[in-house]
Amino acid sequence: MERIVYLDGEFIKETEAKVSIFDRGFLFGDAVYEVTAVINGKLVDNEGHMIRLQRSCSELQIALPATLEQITAIQKKLIEVNQLNEGGIYLQVSRGSAGDRDFGYPENVTPTLVLFTQARNLLNSPKAVKGMKVITTEDIRWKRRDIKTVGLLAPCMAKQGALDKQVDDAWLIEDGYITEGSSNNAYIVTNDGVLITRPLSNDILHGITRKALLELAEQAQIQVEERPFTAEEAYQADEAFVSSATTFVWPVVEIDGKTIGTGKPGSVATKLRDIYIELATQNAE
Amino acid sequence: MERIVYLDGEFIKETEAKVSIFDRGFLFGDAVYEVTAVINGKLVDNEGHMIRLQRSCSELQIALPATLEQITAIQKKLIEVNQLNEGGIYLQVSRGSAGDRDFGYPENVTPTLVLFTQARNLLNSPKAVKGMKVITTEDIRWKRRDIKTVGLLAPCMAKQGALDKQVDDAWLIEDGYITEGSSNNAYIVTNDGVLITRPLSNDILHGITRKALLELAEQAQIQVEERPFTAEEAYQADEAFVSSATTFVWPVVEIDGKTIGTGKPGSVATKLRDIYIELATQNAE
Repeated sequence: MERIVYLDGEFIKETEAKVSIFDRGFLFGDAVYEVTAVINGKLVDNEGHMIRLQRSCSELQIALPATLEQITAIQKKLIEVNQLNEGGIYLQVSRGSAGDRDFGYPENVTPTLVLFTQARNLLNSPKAVKGMKVITTEDIRWKRRDIKTVGLLAPCMAKQGALDKQVDDAWLIEDGYITEGSSNNAYIVTNDGVLITRPLSNDILHGITRKALLELAEQAQIQVEERPFTAEEAYQADEAFVSSATTFVWPVVEIDGKTIGTGKPGSVATKLRDIYIELATQNAE
Repeated sequence: MERIVYLDGEFIKETEAKVSIFDRGFLFGDAVYEVTAVINGKLVDNEGHMIRLQRSCSELQIALPATLEQITAIQKKLIEVNQLNEGGIYLQVSRGSAGDRDFGYPENVTPTLVLFTQARNLLNSPKAVKGMKVITTEDIRWKRRDIKTVGLLAPCMAKQGALDKQVDDAWLIEDGYITEGSSNNAYIVTNDGVLITRPLSNDILHGITRKALLELAEQAQIQVEERPFTAEEAYQADEAFVSSATTFVWPVVEIDGKTIGTGKPGSVATKLRDIYIELATQNAE
């Protein structure tokens, strides 16, 4: 069955959804996005995504072409018409098309709004059970990773580089420290049971799931330290894992060919995943 | 009159040229581009652009969907049907659409090929006569600026930042040194008449016009030094200028509010522009 997607006011077949070649998303990567998880046909942590969307747009002086309430209504409608039980909803806002190409921001242009669903197995993902293998690679991205733009070629290259080496993903390294994964935040658990993750700055995405996990860790009396960590520290750690909107928590059991901890998903990662999913399922709207 | 543009094998009206929302150019900035100048209805230095296009595609493992000869035939056809006398031809190759969104490179996908013309006054540009004003700003781009990708949001932000300050463009600074302009290579001429420009590396675009200019400078017995230079050096220089495919050479007469040299286009910039245009006009095909 063809998906129904949303594009600029219309619900249409996915194969018919097209944007102008002059859309600045296509010509300049001048667009931002969000992905919200869906469990049991309901939106997970969507308010956090909407707030971040607003911030991304505001940083780039893109005017959101719909209110957050209207966007949420579109998300719910897409879940309904596509009978989406589990997966994600992708949302992209580009600055729109001025009908030609010029670097400066055009005036009087309506931003393009696109949303589509993706059916995925989130709760019973094999990666959550087996854990992921990752390699480290240089972080060559731009310096405003806090803005969630579609300028994702560097992460795509990192991810493809990992796939070419028969592993699942790449962790990015800058100035000797891990920043994050190709499309997720990165964590380790030290031999003393301390959960380490890089603090918020322009260097990493301000993960919505990251925020929730750090709160849950505190409630579960897991000691948290927000500081940069090296690949060497990660190799020696008891556990490693990633978080994102649609993976929730995925354990990392191998980094650069080195087994992490026992080589099986660790207890902290498993616990946080379980608590997060329980709460997410309860609070999904 | 509506422009006729080229999209994936067809010559169509510009308002009808649309790409899938799943095109990786739109979703990931996973696309490369080139701009070739047109003088008297003929292509300037197009071979250089075609060679660079091939290199960009090769770095990203994108298979060009047409031979360089076929692309040149499309360029010429567009000049003809749009009766383009002077301006540029924009060309973009994206990795194409796999009908969904996933970071890794999809297999068996045909890249998207788009070309369109832009009519511009190149030979008698007011900027060439009056000179440009620029400001310096931090270079926040990714680290593979030698690949000419559409991940251009950082340059767009820099350009818009300049326009907001009532000047023409921005020069980007990294680790204390100028890398290049928002969409052009940057040069200064010292008080000793030495032409300084940053050497080729992943830090800057390998300008086709830059290459030609350095050869012409040598022939004109202008001493050239390829090394990084600071904003402070630029403020003190006799001349400053930029080069790109469609500006050729534009003098820079003010940087960060400081007058450069006499505040008028300098003799080296003017000479190089004149020689380049003479040759370009002769050799255009």
